[in-house]
Amino acid sequence: MNVRVVHRVDEMQSLGEQTRLSGEGIGLVPTMGFFHEGHLELMRIARNLADTVVVSLFVNPTQFGENEDLAAYPRDLERDLAGAEAAGVDLLFVPSVEEMYPEGFQTAVHVDRLTRGLCGPFRPGHFDGVATVVAKLFHIVKPHVAVFGQKDYQQLAVISRMVQDLNMDVRIVGAPTMREPDGLAMSSRNLYLSPEERKAALCLSESLNLAQELVDAGERDADTIRSAVETHIQRAPFTRIDYVTLCHPDTLEEVKTIEQEALLALAVFVGRARLIDNRIIDGAEKGTKA
Amino acid sequence: MNVRVVHRVDEMQSLGEQTRLSGEGIGLVPTMGFFHEGHLELMRIARNLADTVVVSLFVNPTQFGENEDLAAYPRDLERDLAGAEAAGVDLLFVPSVEEMYPEGFQTAVHVDRLTRGLCGPFRPGHFDGVATVVAKLFHIVKPHVAVFGQKDYQQLAVISRMVQDLNMDVRIVGAPTMREPDGLAMSSRNLYLSPEERKAALCLSESLNLAQELVDAGERDADTIRSAVETHIQRAPFTRIDYVTLCHPDTLEEVKTIEQEALLALAVFVGRARLIDNRIIDGAEKGTKA
Repeated sequence: MNVRVVHRVDEMQSLGEQTRLSGEGIGLVPTMGFFHEGHLELMRIARNLADTVVVSLFVNPTQFGENEDLAAYPRDLERDLAGAEAAGVDLLFVPSVEEMYPEGFQTAVHVDRLTRGLCGPFRPGHFDGVATVVAKLFHIVKPHVAVFGQKDYQQLAVISRMVQDLNMDVRIVGAPTMREPDGLAMSSRNLYLSPEERKAALCLSESLNLAQELVDAGERDADTIRSAVETHIQRAPFTRIDYVTLCHPDTLEEVKTIEQEALLALAVFVGRARLIDNRIIDGAEKGTKA
Repeated sequence: MNVRVVHRVDEMQSLGEQTRLSGEGIGLVPTMGFFHEGHLELMRIARNLADTVVVSLFVNPTQFGENEDLAAYPRDLERDLAGAEAAGVDLLFVPSVEEMYPEGFQTAVHVDRLTRGLCGPFRPGHFDGVATVVAKLFHIVKPHVAVFGQKDYQQLAVISRMVQDLNMDVRIVGAPTMREPDGLAMSSRNLYLSPEERKAALCLSESLNLAQELVDAGERDADTIRSAVETHIQRAPFTRIDYVTLCHPDTLEEVKTIEQEALLALAVFVGRARLIDNRIIDGAEKGTKA
């Protein structure tokens, strides 16, 4: 096994500092573990961008709500180690909850307007938890570059904003969503799906494609497109919609009309699995289509 | 003039990184300028702790309330440059408000329980402004050590907590309050005092000493001590008390009885100048006094 596993915060920070001083570039992929192909792709991207690739594995309790799936969140360190090794990872940072949030902990990083829509109202405190733990990880690991998946689009936007606003000297790279052959976005939470729910869950990616088709056919009204998406999802069994939102890709503010690009983002319960997916909808006028 | 003046954030960050990579230790003294002997002492302390001493000079608008003295806050860059030079400072970082808070800025660092008492209720948002700008300065300057005055005791506590909670790799050093010969704590805001108010302002440090004398004489009840302090301050003209608080030096939670050490902190308007001062009250039993 060539992947070094570090549990202690001070050891990781010391290694990060030493690595920086040696002139090597550090790439960080923050994860909650239970790696799927999406995680491994982030690691491979980091591998191409940095000399030393660090993957943090921490199921962060502060980003889970009271009624969410913290306890059930899947964990398998042995399997993750093998996956990280295959992806060329140098170091797996696996801190304990006690060391990350010792008694007396009371600091939070809050990003404001970007967290008001989409998952924000449905997961109060979630993005404070995300921003805060990522700030901690950046200070501990000291990466030059960090890679996040675009499936968690709002998370990526929030982290990018935090980095910019707080002048963190870290380059943030977003990586395209990895999908199963039938289109389902890869997620550790897909594990919660029964075979029937797994089939029903296809409605998420299908509805994203449906929206692009509507726009390609000339539709520009956000309400009309959103209704079509909602109807498609509601037709599938086991589904319950949290939100379907068409918004500006940078500000995440809702749009009424599709001009140029818009983000279509959705969160849907399929059974007990809360799944999210998104797609940039291209509203630019096109010539002849292939 | 040997002090280098840097205005741009990216230039400062690049210099900070280069200095770290060269193996030199960086000491930072964050200030709002208009240096008095207290600031210069912080710089001399930093000078002893680091190879390269950076002083930031930024009158941070986000830590001023709407009815506070942002516009009136004294500024004199020429004089500050000379003072910094005499104190052995290498670099003065003087960013613009526009570069520190560009359009779209929306991130804040919030420290929770430590900001609930003392100045917290009287200056809503103040400590978020302080924590956020200090986080930014740490990311821009990349110091190994940062020096703050103990006159702003709560600020020092909040920053220490932020650094610990967010795992910032910066050592925080608190420096004792510098006082005028008659005991008045040095502050840029002393400039606001008329000669009569200047005399009246002595009641702050006097009342701190009075409290220690009461404790030395055997008094241990916080209410009794606070009342004596308030009475002493109220007897002086031009004064209006924001708060007089006896609290635990670490948690800043109010105490009812003085055991071992307690922090006595107060904020008092003298004319239009809002002055703060504090003292650790030693409640340990003593032998014969000198």
